Amino acid sequence: MITNNQIKYIRGLSLKKNRLAEQCFVVEGEKSINELIRSSFKIIDLFATKEWLSKNNYSGANEISVSELNRISNLKSPNNVLAIVEKKEQIKDIDSGITLIIDNIKDPGNMGTIIRICDWFDIRNIVCSENTVDIYNPKVVQASMGSLFRVNVRYTNLSKYLQAVKKPIYGSYMDGEDIRKMSFHKDSYMVIGNESNGISSNLSDFINHRVTIKKHTGKTESLNVAVATSILLYELSNSS
Amino acid sequence: MITNNQIKYIRGLSLKKNRLAEQCFVVEGEKSINELIRSSFKIIDLFATKEWLSKNNYSGANEISVSELNRISNLKSPNNVLAIVEKKEQIKDIDSGITLIIDNIKDPGNMGTIIRICDWFDIRNIVCSENTVDIYNPKVVQASMGSLFRVNVRYTNLSKYLQAVKKPIYGSYMDGEDIRKMSFHKDSYMVIGNESNGISSNLSDFINHRVTIKKHTGKTESLNVAVATSILLYELSNSS
Repeated sequence: MITNNQIKYIRGLSLKKNRLAEQCFVVEGEKSINELIRSSFKIIDLFATKEWLSKNNYSGANEISVSELNRISNLKSPNNVLAIVEKKEQIKDIDSGITLIIDNIKDPGNMGTIIRICDWFDIRNIVCSENTVDIYNPKVVQASMGSLFRVNVRYTNLSKYLQAVKKPIYGSYMDGEDIRKMSFHKDSYMVIGNESNGISSNLSDFINHRVTIKKHTGKTESLNVAVATSILLYELSNSS
Repeated sequence: MITNNQIKYIRGLSLKKNRLAEQCFVVEGEKSINELIRSSFKIIDLFATKEWLSKNNYSGANEISVSELNRISNLKSPNNVLAIVEKKEQIKDIDSGITLIIDNIKDPGNMGTIIRICDWFDIRNIVCSENTVDIYNPKVVQASMGSLFRVNVRYTNLSKYLQAVKKPIYGSYMDGEDIRKMSFHKDSYMVIGNESNGISSNLSDFINHRVTIKKHTGKTESLNVAVATSILLYELSNSS
């Protein structure tokens, strides 16, 4: 059972301004909810169909019908369960190792995929420019497939942030050094830029090493940014 | 100017059965159309706004209004130009080098991204299982960003196909050898599998080397298939 006010509230959370005002966001689907329950994120409310409740032991869930779920879901094919979750933004970087710096990624699918890649390569810190897409956007949450709950993400003024960094800062460019021929420092920063415009020019002074994924005579102009990030982090993680 | 019959015809091409019957497909947007015009694909009809026509010299274009374009476009934000293009499917592999074998990829975004990755790494042959998503699906065309016109793709019975292969066949699994520690044959085949189920069990006998992208203690179960493919092809292309 769900009230009209609850429906309105949940649907409103697809907008960033409401997520900001309420300090919460929506997580959907069985896989993501399983990861959520195992995480340290706080669930404010959980709505689930009879089918989900019969398979899962979760106290305090609200049982709703499939048609009620359809009304609150952001998914094309709603998947049995939806939760309202408290935001948990990180204030400081957690530890040493590789930190990924994201400058102005706009596409939520790319952002979610990048978070999932970081989780795979055990990169725990992501620092984003203030104009990067919100990680609590429903499409980011969806594309991250639960990895969002394990990677620490924060937003800041990157120019100020990078100015204070004392470790090597790598940046992904079209005309940098071939990553295959480099040896990377593992305690370092990797900057990736916007889908169309790359890294903002005001950050270039902070970047010590411009790096590139070598093209093999192919004619395509660029790789998708999530794909490029995966290759950069693969090479960086495996550098000895 | 566009007739109602033309609108119906073009919209119909978003369905595979109509693309099959008509042997043509739709390409949209300025970037993809630029790549199309430079390719060897045959344009049957081209519809463009005044804005596009004022910047491009293309004889035989049909001028249409923005609202007419909106009616025929598959894009959320239609981008000035749309063409109907003759299909051109490959019958044989073109040359030696790396061939990518795709077993049952379903998501058109993944498929388009994989085609773009192949173009980047100069991999010219892609052979797909018959149940793999159609490369002329509008979302595949869109995600490939013009790379579709430069990579040769065909569909066949993979079991029969792989049986006849005499070169090394690598396959992407969760439990294979770490690709970072391997040296690959450059004249070879790489098999990637379905988003959820991986490589079909009836193909496993043909695979000589099971390979894996090593996880770095991260907790995510898997990488997105396009991301995994990019890392595999990066490693394979750079193998010496």
